[in-house]
Amino acid sequence: MCKEKLYVVKIGGNVIDDPVTLDSFLQEFSKIEGKKILVHGGGKLLQELAVKMNVPQKMIDGRRITDTETLQLALMVYGGSISKNIVAQLQAAGLNSIGLSGADLNCITAKKRENSDIDFGYVGDIQQDGVNTKVISFLLDNNITPVFCSITHNGKGQLLNTNADSITNAIAVSLSSMFDVQLHYFFDKKGVLGDSTNEDSIIPTIDQTMFKKLIAEKKISGGMIPKLDNAFNAIQRGVPLVVIAHSSQLKNAIQRKENIGTCLVS
Amino acid sequence: MCKEKLYVVKIGGNVIDDPVTLDSFLQEFSKIEGKKILVHGGGKLLQELAVKMNVPQKMIDGRRITDTETLQLALMVYGGSISKNIVAQLQAAGLNSIGLSGADLNCITAKKRENSDIDFGYVGDIQQDGVNTKVISFLLDNNITPVFCSITHNGKGQLLNTNADSITNAIAVSLSSMFDVQLHYFFDKKGVLGDSTNEDSIIPTIDQTMFKKLIAEKKISGGMIPKLDNAFNAIQRGVPLVVIAHSSQLKNAIQRKENIGTCLVS
Repeated sequence: MCKEKLYVVKIGGNVIDDPVTLDSFLQEFSKIEGKKILVHGGGKLLQELAVKMNVPQKMIDGRRITDTETLQLALMVYGGSISKNIVAQLQAAGLNSIGLSGADLNCITAKKRENSDIDFGYVGDIQQDGVNTKVISFLLDNNITPVFCSITHNGKGQLLNTNADSITNAIAVSLSSMFDVQLHYFFDKKGVLGDSTNEDSIIPTIDQTMFKKLIAEKKISGGMIPKLDNAFNAIQRGVPLVVIAHSSQLKNAIQRKENIGTCLVS
Repeated sequence: MCKEKLYVVKIGGNVIDDPVTLDSFLQEFSKIEGKKILVHGGGKLLQELAVKMNVPQKMIDGRRITDTETLQLALMVYGGSISKNIVAQLQAAGLNSIGLSGADLNCITAKKRENSDIDFGYVGDIQQDGVNTKVISFLLDNNITPVFCSITHNGKGQLLNTNADSITNAIAVSLSSMFDVQLHYFFDKKGVLGDSTNEDSIIPTIDQTMFKKLIAEKKISGGMIPKLDNAFNAIQRGVPLVVIAHSSQLKNAIQRKENIGTCLVS
């Protein structure tokens, strides 16, 4: 049976930070025909709020430690201002959307990360079967577009800060048994670059073998490695297509126009 | 035809501020049988955040002026931390709930307040037909309990700070054509007091005539006057029953036990 198309779209902090970029992105997003889900980050705004409120941010190996105060900041920034602003813009563009954390409708449950070496605080890792596909497809079937922030809960009253890429992948993987999922990451680069000094050196397609080679050659580094690692993990778990592209290219990327972004394949 | 019962419940800042009080209230709320809606304020926490972030708060005649920065604080506190914390607690108690602003699912539209004398800023007044009864009853019919924060939108992308009592009343009035609505205000007093120095001087029942008399005799004053004014307005517009009681008395108030709180009648 032919499955219905579902677009799972992630936008990073750099899209959210700039009101003009965000507005134009949301206008295009609202025009995507059919079922779609938006997931947003917002780490930079969280960082700014932490500075304003004198909440020291502890990072270990580039990863944020979420203490009690930082969790409250995350709820405010991700679940409050960013989520509500996005939803208000989408409604104005005629798209019926709803801002959700993992606690709302019990959409996503996670487990507090246990680590013998580092205490990450209130950070959640999404469990197998942690995504409530029943309720999410219920929303989609009623022409409601879910907008997820990077907050989950443990089902026992504890909210948890959860990486937005991980949420995006978990949603895409879980729903790929019901839908023909097309997973999109939008950010401020035109795709995965073969040469970080050349913005136009987009690699059109990467498979697993090539990914390992690019790392070995140090052509890919930093935050791009976990992002791609996550994306290949999603592909292995059943997501047929992952595209990484610039936020200004939403329409072309969705339509799979040639030479747009980087396409990840198994 | 006999209409189904719907409980519309408002909790004020003083219930929200204390985690123990809130937790015990939410436990009781989750046990209410049948359809229910929760509306929460949170002005005191907003005030605290404004102080921490050095955002000066302008008040005119006891009413907050919502400038751009204050609106963002309201989104963070009402739509973010308070809403998500309440929903996580309710989920833990086994109640399937969802945190909503007026923008989410286009639940409540409002108009920015125009006033020739005072510019209230981003403050919204709910319009006639501003409550989307169709989508709210759709949630209720699917055993989902909406949790509303005091944020609406104008449908054109602008979020608006809106008095939580006004939201509660508008929801109760709009849904009273479809449901047998019982409207409850819970706060830190045992009811409307006939003598403000005596916590046990609860007036069991107040009608409109008595309300005017109590004001004339200066037995009711301050914030209680607009609260009761609003409540009587809801009664005039079709809400059959309004009860004002202490937050620790939720169960008894819902069950209409004698000597619990103040009952407002036409």
